[in-house]
Amino acid sequence: MEPGGKAARFSSGWAAKALPQRLMLLLLTLLSGRGLHVVAAASSSGAAAEDSSAMEELATEKEAEESHRQDSVSLLTFILLLTLTILTIWLFKHRRVRFLHETGLAMIYGLIVGVILRYGTPATSGHDKSLSCTQEDRAFSTLLVNVSGKFFEYTLKGEISPGKINSVEQNDMLRKVTFDPEVFFNILLPPIIFHAGYSLKKRHFFRNLGSILAYAFLGTAVSCFIIGNLMYGVVKLMKMVGQLSDKFYYTDCLFFGAIISATDPVTVLAIFNELHADVDLYALLFGESVLNDAVAIVLSSSIVAYQPAGLNTHTFDAAAFFKSVGIFLGIFSGSFTMGAVTGVVTALVTKFTKLHCFPLLETALFFLMSWSTFLLAEACGFTGVVAVLFCGITQAHYTYNNLSVESRSRTKQLFEVLHFLAENFIFSYMGLALFTFQKHVFSPIFIIGAFVAIFLGRAAHIYPLSFFLNLGRRHKIGWNFQQMMMFSGLRGAMAFALAIRDTASYARQMMFTTTLLIVFFTVWIIGGGTTPMLSWLNIRIGVDPDQDPPPNNDSFQVLQGDGPDSAGGNRTKQESAWLFRLWYSFDHNYLKPILTHSGPPLTTTLPAWCGLLAHCLTSPQVYDNQEPLREEDSDFILTEGDLTLTYGDSTVTANGSSGSHTASTSLEGGRKTKSSSEEVLEQDLGVGDQKISSRGTRLVFPLEDNA
Amino acid sequence: MEPGGKAARFSSGWAAKALPQRLMLLLLTLLSGRGLHVVAAASSSGAAAEDSSAMEELATEKEAEESHRQDSVSLLTFILLLTLTILTIWLFKHRRVRFLHETGLAMIYGLIVGVILRYGTPATSGHDKSLSCTQEDRAFSTLLVNVSGKFFEYTLKGEISPGKINSVEQNDMLRKVTFDPEVFFNILLPPIIFHAGYSLKKRHFFRNLGSILAYAFLGTAVSCFIIGNLMYGVVKLMKMVGQLSDKFYYTDCLFFGAIISATDPVTVLAIFNELHADVDLYALLFGESVLNDAVAIVLSSSIVAYQPAGLNTHTFDAAAFFKSVGIFLGIFSGSFTMGAVTGVVTALVTKFTKLHCFPLLETALFFLMSWSTFLLAEACGFTGVVAVLFCGITQAHYTYNNLSVESRSRTKQLFEVLHFLAENFIFSYMGLALFTFQKHVFSPIFIIGAFVAIFLGRAAHIYPLSFFLNLGRRHKIGWNFQQMMMFSGLRGAMAFALAIRDTASYARQMMFTTTLLIVFFTVWIIGGGTTPMLSWLNIRIGVDPDQDPPPNNDSFQVLQGDGPDSAGGNRTKQESAWLFRLWYSFDHNYLKPILTHSGPPLTTTLPAWCGLLAHCLTSPQVYDNQEPLREEDSDFILTEGDLTLTYGDSTVTANGSSGSHTASTSLEGGRKTKSSSEEVLEQDLGVGDQKISSRGTRLVFPLEDNA
Repeated sequence: MEPGGKAARFSSGWAAKALPQRLMLLLLTLLSGRGLHVVAAASSSGAAAEDSSAMEELATEKEAEESHRQDSVSLLTFILLLTLTILTIWLFKHRRVRFLHETGLAMIYGLIVGVILRYGTPATSGHDKSLSCTQEDRAFSTLLVNVSGKFFEYTLKGEISPGKINSVEQNDMLRKVTFDPEVFFNILLPPIIFHAGYSLKKRHFFRNLGSILAYAFLGTAVSCFIIGNLMYGVVKLMKMVGQLSDKFYYTDCLFFGAIISATDPVTVLAIFNELHADVDLYALLFGESVLNDAVAIVLSSSIVAYQPAGLNTHTFDAAAFFKSVGIFLGIFSGSFTMGAVTGVVTALVTKFTKLHCFPLLETALFFLMSWSTFLLAEACGFTGVVAVLFCGITQAHYTYNNLSVESRSRTKQLFEVLHFLAENFIFSYMGLALFTFQKHVFSPIFIIGAFVAIFLGRAAHIYPLSFFLNLGRRHKIGWNFQQMMMFSGLRGAMAFALAIRDTASYARQMMFTTTLLIVFFTVWIIGGGTTPMLSWLNIRIGVDPDQDPPPNNDSFQVLQGDGPDSAGGNRTKQESAWLFRLWYSFDHNYLKPILTHSGPPLTTTLPAWCGLLAHCLTSPQVYDNQEPLREEDSDFILTEGDLTLTYGDSTVTANGSSGSHTASTSLEGGRKTKSSSEEVLEQDLGVGDQKISSRGTRLVFPLEDNA
Repeated sequence: MEPGGKAARFSSGWAAKALPQRLMLLLLTLLSGRGLHVVAAASSSGAAAEDSSAMEELATEKEAEESHRQDSVSLLTFILLLTLTILTIWLFKHRRVRFLHETGLAMIYGLIVGVILRYGTPATSGHDKSLSCTQEDRAFSTLLVNVSGKFFEYTLKGEISPGKINSVEQNDMLRKVTFDPEVFFNILLPPIIFHAGYSLKKRHFFRNLGSILAYAFLGTAVSCFIIGNLMYGVVKLMKMVGQLSDKFYYTDCLFFGAIISATDPVTVLAIFNELHADVDLYALLFGESVLNDAVAIVLSSSIVAYQPAGLNTHTFDAAAFFKSVGIFLGIFSGSFTMGAVTGVVTALVTKFTKLHCFPLLETALFFLMSWSTFLLAEACGFTGVVAVLFCGITQAHYTYNNLSVESRSRTKQLFEVLHFLAENFIFSYMGLALFTFQKHVFSPIFIIGAFVAIFLGRAAHIYPLSFFLNLGRRHKIGWNFQQMMMFSGLRGAMAFALAIRDTASYARQMMFTTTLLIVFFTVWIIGGGTTPMLSWLNIRIGVDPDQDPPPNNDSFQVLQGDGPDSAGGNRTKQESAWLFRLWYSFDHNYLKPILTHSGPPLTTTLPAWCGLLAHCLTSPQVYDNQEPLREEDSDFILTEGDLTLTYGDSTVTANGSSGSHTASTSLEGGRKTKSSSEEVLEQDLGVGDQKISSRGTRLVFPLEDNA
């Protein structure tokens, strides 16, 4: 409900970025004011005779100290909020309440504190120390001001719309709890995204890689396009009924489509994890949400980069369009490369040094290398968050194998804690922002339109794509899986971070408000409805994540190549299998032996003339135990590839992640082992399934409370 | 080598704080510029017709993007520096080289990078966009500038001395690698200090508590006073020979005494830890250094707060002096209380919830509560770093017992990694600062004077205090221990952080440069000389930290109360014993049972009329196993207290930290057990000692390289 007409005109990038958020940084809060008495005494010692200036000093010092105190209080507010969330969540977990996830709870608490701050604190503590000074020239980023002979340096904070000059520092507390949006991108998102990549269950991820990539790339693009066009219709409608008070271009609509296409089924996945729901569905949902975050970021910046030549912007321009596509590809592949390269370097370093004797050094190195990916990508103009994702995947695939046992758990736990804190912080901030953010634009038509659009966009993304994927997939994506994927289209941290990044114009403010409401609605309603939905859709729960799907699916039939659907999708299937075989054999024969202590010795896989090099690169451990140490992803080839392809040393382990199996069985033997283990699993699950689904909405496991 | 005369006059606390460091924050670096294209498009969409403004935007946007890129590069520099340090340290540890500690190495690498940045990068990339604007009034913290109808908000960055107006943004890279000094206090020091408190070996700490407190409080005060007075003499001398170009008051000298009295024997302790040197000497050194950091911070701010009434500052004023003393006591006790209270609250929360079923939640809660101590103290005007120290000690003493096994290792490891990274970052920053800090004042006389002063100050602190303490101590501080303590007077992170906090005046700049050199010298020379010194002073190494000192000291003799020295120190001894008994029985009978799951049930220790309360507060576990679960510090009473004092349930465990012993032996039995275990220890050590000391400077343990 802003005037808006003026707020949209910002004259500099710096200004537009910094102004709306009142320059409040997560950690900057801590950095001001403290120890000011030290400073004051130093200056007074140098200026003993200057009476008035000493008085001024004291006043400014007090202000700064007060400001620091408020900063501490505001950060303390968030910490207490998180503490409260943790305690309530414990209570919920303890009582096995599943209708509300911790993120939803964090939002509720944030909301409550937001209401208190908004309506409970005095509206104006405004000690407005502003001073006007007229310049005829453009705004500079640095300003030198001559005050009675002394020079002061000022930095540009942002532009103020003329109507708001008197309300700049309206409510100190509201201002204090408003962070710079770049905090989300540069501090809070990286650990969340890295953890997603690092904790990826590789085996199931790779087995469904084709589908995941299709959902993430094609799906996000389709969703973005559909939502963008639908919203453009809504905007046209708003213009007709006179509900739109400022410009709203087609590119803005597409931008909205991009940011709102970033799904984040955190609540759904948490419940899946807890109930051990079907691993393939988990892999599809998790993989899609992780990758589509990356796609959405790059897509949104490509849309923004779409600037047709000349002054008639907002018309279609083929050159600009292809430039945007090029930017998308460039940024995405660049970020991917950065992440992969840092991961590979870390793997090499951990392999060729004996750092694993000192887990502390190893963990510190791992942390620093992973962080440097982010900085490296940012320094090169790529997207740090995307680079961090692929770095995480590479670290999990290669480096993890080289780490000492202690470092493995250390790194996992470190990033788990960081991820947990960052995620809950973002969600409680969202709750707070609904009341404390000062430039909301609530437009009922736009909001309703957006809800309809994301529903249709999700439907247009899931059902057709699943149909086409099923043509080529051996292991079909069932109707209930599609319904569950449709249902799991929650929006979360990424959509919020993208929306809050720029709230300078009227259109962006409306998008931000709408995104916030969409996140609230989806997290609470969908999060709460996950457990009933799972039992309603008859999705298997209680599955051991290290087990393969049971043979009552059609996977075995299709695996043999004589399934009824296999004729149509034969080409796709073979191609995918060929591609995977190629990658797998390259990874297994060259990358793994070079980067880790596992795999066959390079001396056997490389041609004879690189014997010396091969000898240097192969770790001595490989010769000691010829069978590979760990092959967590070796069996995706079994399900995916044809059975004639055999590797001399490939092992089939039903429980791939539990250390180094030494039994080097043949593939046929492997099949038999697996089948029998699946039978056992089936019997086990028969009981569990029945027990669980009979309870209806609140699933209760027959676990004893160990109090 | 500054003009200095003008630089000393700063007119506001804000200005004085922010200017010298060029407003560079550790994490702020990450927060600017990225995603600016998003912003730019948004603004251009709102200002399609404004041609010139669009051009300006692009220019500013490019600048901001460039600035962000440089920020990333500078942070990347530090990360690569740390990575390099870690790798080299691994090599050193691998080869058992002990003459250079990781912190010393971090400094060397920092130094090298500093030289490259200083002399290798182009001196002026200075795109000086400054603008002058004359004001007749005082400097405000916020400035509104009217540029052709649009209003821009500017914030005060600091005052510029007139001579330097043209060199404000002289070298971008040097400016980028200079952090806001408050980063050290608010981000890097807290994890270091918390870890010190949390990893304290309580048993040996408490056994030597009296001596540690004496060294920390009295010792630091003596050292501060001696160094301050000696430096005042040096300053007088400099004035006489005309080497002093600006004011340098007596309070400045005392301030220097305070900051340089914060010892940080990180390198010595690392070697002690590695070689398992004498645990009592370790406890004395570690305890002293941890507590004297706290004393030094509070002392320095009390000295700064010494502002005599009226305008004739820098003269003695009894009222102001007592006010300073009051401030010292107030801040110290306030911070102590804050830390202890948060620790107690965390202990209660972890005791009365069953949070230990969810280690992730538990770890997150632990982290948040510990951080909130810092913020709480800062919000109340106390010293966060000091509060965090006592919070760490409380957490280790109570909360740690309530945590799940997984959370124990998680929290330990988390803070270990944070501590490691923060410490090495500070030391590599120190190396860098020697060349990149732009306001060094090298004064040879002052520097030489400072070295002599810290030597004399340390001597005046250690020898007399040890003499007086030995009068009262049962377990004497031997001559070789005193020599080692004298030798271990390294200066490190705390002295640096205190010195860099304010470098506004000429005196402070000179102090900063001197502190930096003292840190370099002590870390390199003393750190390198520790191992030869240990063998030269015949200090036992290879001691199991959980064992008591062997009986060849005079401790048993004195323990019986008939030692030759015991007559003189009888009062002190008895008092101390009485105080400890009081504290121990209070802690054991009330605090431990209330805050943890160990100790006797409250129903037996509290009077009958609080039966219900006692029943509520006692955890059910206590009734299950009547013997206490863990009593890691129970045996300090054995060495310290008299033998007639017995507790019904006190257990004597030779290895107190290794879980719950159930044998509830009598004290006499305990004595016997201990004596026999000590004999075994003696025999074990006999061999180890001989082997180790025979190697001279490079001690090599007979450990096998497990590669």
